[in-house]
Amino acid sequence: MRLWISYDGTDFAGWQRQAGAETVQEHIERAVAVVCQSETTVHGSGRTDSGVHALGQIAHLRLEKGPAIEIMPRALNSMLPPDIRVWHAREVPLDFHARFSARSKRYVYRVLSGPTPDPLLRRFGHFSGYELDLGAMREAASLLYGEHDFAAFSANPGKTRVRSTVRKLTGIHIRKARHGFDFSVQGNGFLYNMVRILVGSLLEVGRGKCPPAWIMEVLRSKDRCMGGPTLPPQGLFLIKALYPPNCGSEPRRASARKSTLAG
Amino acid sequence: MRLWISYDGTDFAGWQRQAGAETVQEHIERAVAVVCQSETTVHGSGRTDSGVHALGQIAHLRLEKGPAIEIMPRALNSMLPPDIRVWHAREVPLDFHARFSARSKRYVYRVLSGPTPDPLLRRFGHFSGYELDLGAMREAASLLYGEHDFAAFSANPGKTRVRSTVRKLTGIHIRKARHGFDFSVQGNGFLYNMVRILVGSLLEVGRGKCPPAWIMEVLRSKDRCMGGPTLPPQGLFLIKALYPPNCGSEPRRASARKSTLAG
Repeated sequence: MRLWISYDGTDFAGWQRQAGAETVQEHIERAVAVVCQSETTVHGSGRTDSGVHALGQIAHLRLEKGPAIEIMPRALNSMLPPDIRVWHAREVPLDFHARFSARSKRYVYRVLSGPTPDPLLRRFGHFSGYELDLGAMREAASLLYGEHDFAAFSANPGKTRVRSTVRKLTGIHIRKARHGFDFSVQGNGFLYNMVRILVGSLLEVGRGKCPPAWIMEVLRSKDRCMGGPTLPPQGLFLIKALYPPNCGSEPRRASARKSTLAG
Repeated sequence: MRLWISYDGTDFAGWQRQAGAETVQEHIERAVAVVCQSETTVHGSGRTDSGVHALGQIAHLRLEKGPAIEIMPRALNSMLPPDIRVWHAREVPLDFHARFSARSKRYVYRVLSGPTPDPLLRRFGHFSGYELDLGAMREAASLLYGEHDFAAFSANPGKTRVRSTVRKLTGIHIRKARHGFDFSVQGNGFLYNMVRILVGSLLEVGRGKCPPAWIMEVLRSKDRCMGGPTLPPQGLFLIKALYPPNCGSEPRRASARKSTLAG
């Protein structure tokens, strides 16, 4: 079974189950245990960090028993805290894996700008007090398209187990919105803190501290110390995970998803 | 001096100062005391209830000393919690009073609808699980225009001191949005809980429980027990207070105000 999940990450220690912390995965597994009378692992498309939000987290689980799939969202939601909602549930082929079957993922990082941060948006964006040059940020962003070694845009790469830091960005767009800027980043995979460091570096360009070409110097250095700061988690949204056609099409709930990030 | 203030009301016991509770007025008065080295009362255009938000609360205060008015918003914001922001400060005639000079006020009540509530909007809207008939709600709303005795749409009118319960509604509009419905209500004054009861009654019409003409029965009864429920505070926003032209024009910050309620 595949679930489409949305959450306000503010009060969770991220997606992944861990001892002594409230996590989204744990809440969903507990809800499944009650609703389906069966203990099972719920696998997410990616592990969002503490404080990061999701509009379209995808998860899968295998169930021997439980209620009809049509009533699963309502049944699970009745057991979940209000900051986690299951939008949709559907059957998928047995070999479907939310993480390993994903072809790519899309994130949005929301930057609030202007003279005064809007207090009603503060949980869902990072406020920058600087004037930001959209043209310069777009020029820098365009240099990151395609396949690169993103080691410089990854936190603590040396501390994790050795693996490739090469990833492919298939989309990176910056939209001017009324509240500031939305940075949309799509790729076949993301390193730890990659989006937050990447947007943090683009803001250095936007405020005029570094020229757009500097982003290539950072990339080539493969050195985390060369890039911009890691932005805080409240601006980051996991928008969707994309799968090959045989994994089924998206549920028709795009309008609901859009509403949260409108403006 | 006149201040334009915005706040996320979730964690406050409303606007008005009261012993043993965190209120917006108290926070602003404390910030003024530090910034201006002077104790003074900050008068709001209206007392928003516990949990109610404001995008355009107007307040005035009289100061003998303090920093230049241009830097007041930044100075006050540096002392305020992040869920309260001062957008703008300006000088006004000495006889200006945020509450008594106000010609009218505008509120928006946001209703979220659809099969599943969006967890990222739950602090800023009231979720209704019903299908709502926009045409029927608009028909009922149109009956409330103009001057009426709104006693039936007021909480505990008998417990407050005797005064008129006649008010004039100069605007009442319902907008279909992606997340649900925004009810915009403008009038020369509002009774306690009036917007929340009024929209609660319109929802009874929208879900088909009562016909549009029922709203006139409620109005004429002058009996609180006849109307719909008082909706919870998290859907309510004080949008703006309007003053006569001699009190000065609005600061040009409409775009910022719009962003929060976009969609």
